[in-house]
Amino acid sequence: MPKKAQPSVPSGPASAPAPATSTAPALSRRRLLGAASAAGATGLALGGTTGALAHAATSDAPPTALSSVGTGRVAFRGTHQCGITTPLQAHGRLVAFDLAPTAGRAEAAALLRRWSDAAERLMDAVGTDSPADGPASGIALDAGPCSLTVTFGFGRSLFARTGLTDRMPDALRPLPRFTADALDPDRSDGDLWVQIGADDPLVTLHALRVLRAEAGEAARPRWEMAGFNRTPGATARPMTPRNLMGQVDGTNNPRPADDDFADRIFVPRGGEPDWMAGGSYAVVRRIRMLLDDWDGTPLQEQEQVIGRRKSDGAPLSGGPDASEDTAVDLEARDSSGRPAIAADAHVRVAAPETNGGAAMLRRPFSYHDGLREDGAPDAGLLFVAWQADPLTGFVPVQRKLDSGDALSRFLRHEASGLFAVPGGPATGEYVGQRLLEG
Amino acid sequence: MPKKAQPSVPSGPASAPAPATSTAPALSRRRLLGAASAAGATGLALGGTTGALAHAATSDAPPTALSSVGTGRVAFRGTHQCGITTPLQAHGRLVAFDLAPTAGRAEAAALLRRWSDAAERLMDAVGTDSPADGPASGIALDAGPCSLTVTFGFGRSLFARTGLTDRMPDALRPLPRFTADALDPDRSDGDLWVQIGADDPLVTLHALRVLRAEAGEAARPRWEMAGFNRTPGATARPMTPRNLMGQVDGTNNPRPADDDFADRIFVPRGGEPDWMAGGSYAVVRRIRMLLDDWDGTPLQEQEQVIGRRKSDGAPLSGGPDASEDTAVDLEARDSSGRPAIAADAHVRVAAPETNGGAAMLRRPFSYHDGLREDGAPDAGLLFVAWQADPLTGFVPVQRKLDSGDALSRFLRHEASGLFAVPGGPATGEYVGQRLLEG
Repeated sequence: MPKKAQPSVPSGPASAPAPATSTAPALSRRRLLGAASAAGATGLALGGTTGALAHAATSDAPPTALSSVGTGRVAFRGTHQCGITTPLQAHGRLVAFDLAPTAGRAEAAALLRRWSDAAERLMDAVGTDSPADGPASGIALDAGPCSLTVTFGFGRSLFARTGLTDRMPDALRPLPRFTADALDPDRSDGDLWVQIGADDPLVTLHALRVLRAEAGEAARPRWEMAGFNRTPGATARPMTPRNLMGQVDGTNNPRPADDDFADRIFVPRGGEPDWMAGGSYAVVRRIRMLLDDWDGTPLQEQEQVIGRRKSDGAPLSGGPDASEDTAVDLEARDSSGRPAIAADAHVRVAAPETNGGAAMLRRPFSYHDGLREDGAPDAGLLFVAWQADPLTGFVPVQRKLDSGDALSRFLRHEASGLFAVPGGPATGEYVGQRLLEG
Repeated sequence: MPKKAQPSVPSGPASAPAPATSTAPALSRRRLLGAASAAGATGLALGGTTGALAHAATSDAPPTALSSVGTGRVAFRGTHQCGITTPLQAHGRLVAFDLAPTAGRAEAAALLRRWSDAAERLMDAVGTDSPADGPASGIALDAGPCSLTVTFGFGRSLFARTGLTDRMPDALRPLPRFTADALDPDRSDGDLWVQIGADDPLVTLHALRVLRAEAGEAARPRWEMAGFNRTPGATARPMTPRNLMGQVDGTNNPRPADDDFADRIFVPRGGEPDWMAGGSYAVVRRIRMLLDDWDGTPLQEQEQVIGRRKSDGAPLSGGPDASEDTAVDLEARDSSGRPAIAADAHVRVAAPETNGGAAMLRRPFSYHDGLREDGAPDAGLLFVAWQADPLTGFVPVQRKLDSGDALSRFLRHEASGLFAVPGGPATGEYVGQRLLEG
């Protein structure tokens, strides 16, 4: 799989620079940017791996030192917010807040300013946050930033609450109902959404505690979810992550090196509405997996459901010599003349070719919250998908999956949110300022 | 803090060899054992850190490679079970099972044999577990063992279920009720207890799924809890872990190098009952922390509650130059003549000197399961404490803490279990064979 380790992969369209990931301060600025570009591209080419791992794969130097896990640092400011093209971290916390009944646009603006200040400070040096500094309880003391990212989004309900319905994006129209949905409203939607990611769980929790304290009386948490991915260094080389079904997940993600990457993922400068320039839309779904049913399904049947081999993610259309990077051939037939990729296989139903080119950047975390009352595992995927417009991303894909995907009988969509994630803040700006003070 | 990084720390009493932690197969057997001994000792000297970090601290070689996180491997067989003196891993799953109503001694014996076989196989090479091999769904494919440990314990209720009440240890008598207890019986106790630890969350979950499948109809999960510690490499050097109050936690843990370590932690050969030789007793408590109250408490008051500085864990009796390793001086007075360590400070009330020498090896995981219905975080400590007898370990300490500890007003004990953890299995044996077939 040579393209996974190519240091020459460009960092993406010039119009869409990813926030830098660094292992500062040990590296020179130049080395740092080089590593950041390669890491960003590789991470996405893999459908997301941890920054440190991606970095290791793009270096001729000796094996990456363990200590680079802590020193990974992502820039808060830039054309886009962090946490979208940032290589996927090992821990994530997704939280929605609702504004207090008495709060309006002024309170929302002040909150976003406080949150932006806090996020920038934490992402730069979370471990030096003084325990005397107000709300911080010191749980991240001694730790490096661990590639912490904090990403802020706005739900549809925010606009009425702040008197800004005339500036609400069309793209925030409610998602259609899908037949597989069994959504819990208490764990769906929300005025404000915060995505926290880092390679250390105490770092994500420290950020969560600080942001919650900064919310003060202006907003209260509506729901909160925790997820994870592989620990940096758990595999011998960078790998596309596996989900809790054991399936390699993310192989076909758009890559920053793709010509149309920015067009698919980010709202262009001059797009509608103007305050969303450089922004993206996040579809968040809590998708429970019926793991007992899945684990009881024979391997060959599991592979037919997906259309890929379990062991390495190679498409079933590619024969025994195929690898994960082999292109899916939807026309291929097996030795008995049947389609190698079944009519209802997940990769066929989800393929851009069968969806008018619809694409999104999936950047999920797995979750496993113990046992449900029925004794089954409360486990699955905190699905987070990024796109310039859900109508050319999540919606058409999910519509097709909803009606014809063999995988859907093993899945339950239990919560859903759609959030407008503004572009990254310029120096002196806070996230969303162009909306809230525009 | 020189003693933290001394490679010359012995591996503990000869009578109590810790299971080996290795980064095999890259290292020679000799190098491997040296690293294992030092890592084990250092991990405990720190009150537990990850194996990989402890290893890094004891080596003259260049910084530990990130890939050593995955290759960490712990031995399943030995004098003691793994997961007691093993350096604390980044992820943990605690699960209790109850035998099926129709199951008795024969079914319990068969289950422990299946579980022991599975645990040994997983700890050796979890990532090569074939997805075609029955229950495994392949979520750990590609991963190294990541220092996986699986530890089995027996609850009091098992003995009646298996007709073995005459062989039940006195040490398994029910714990006394403490005034701070608000225990949920559905999340307490259980016939069988399994502690799973590893540096990767998908590895712990794979082990959990396999063990659950191996239980078949013989036992069903009673409760399940998930916890975490720092990710390997999140701090620049090995550190005593912090809990979710931000406090350095574990400084005063017994250390394998202590002369009385084995006496305090393990049942001796020739002890009672005979089948517990080399075993230990695990007290498991789910201790919720009232983090909103704690975070609202001024730093200086937090430090008085504990008796140590938040920043570095130094005792308040030691003055500004003290470090974490400075001995607590319970007699010291501050400049105004008051005790430097308050009468109700946690370190005073918990100190062995004030408890007739009672001691236990604490090896906890933090947990943070989102929001409770009252809006407070459902977060705290999955407290796991190891001792040769709870009556000279947890019980006297908790009795004192219960009545006089300033920290107790920030804690709620919500679940409790006490489990007899037999010695490690010899070649060909399964865990508990000396009880179940003795």
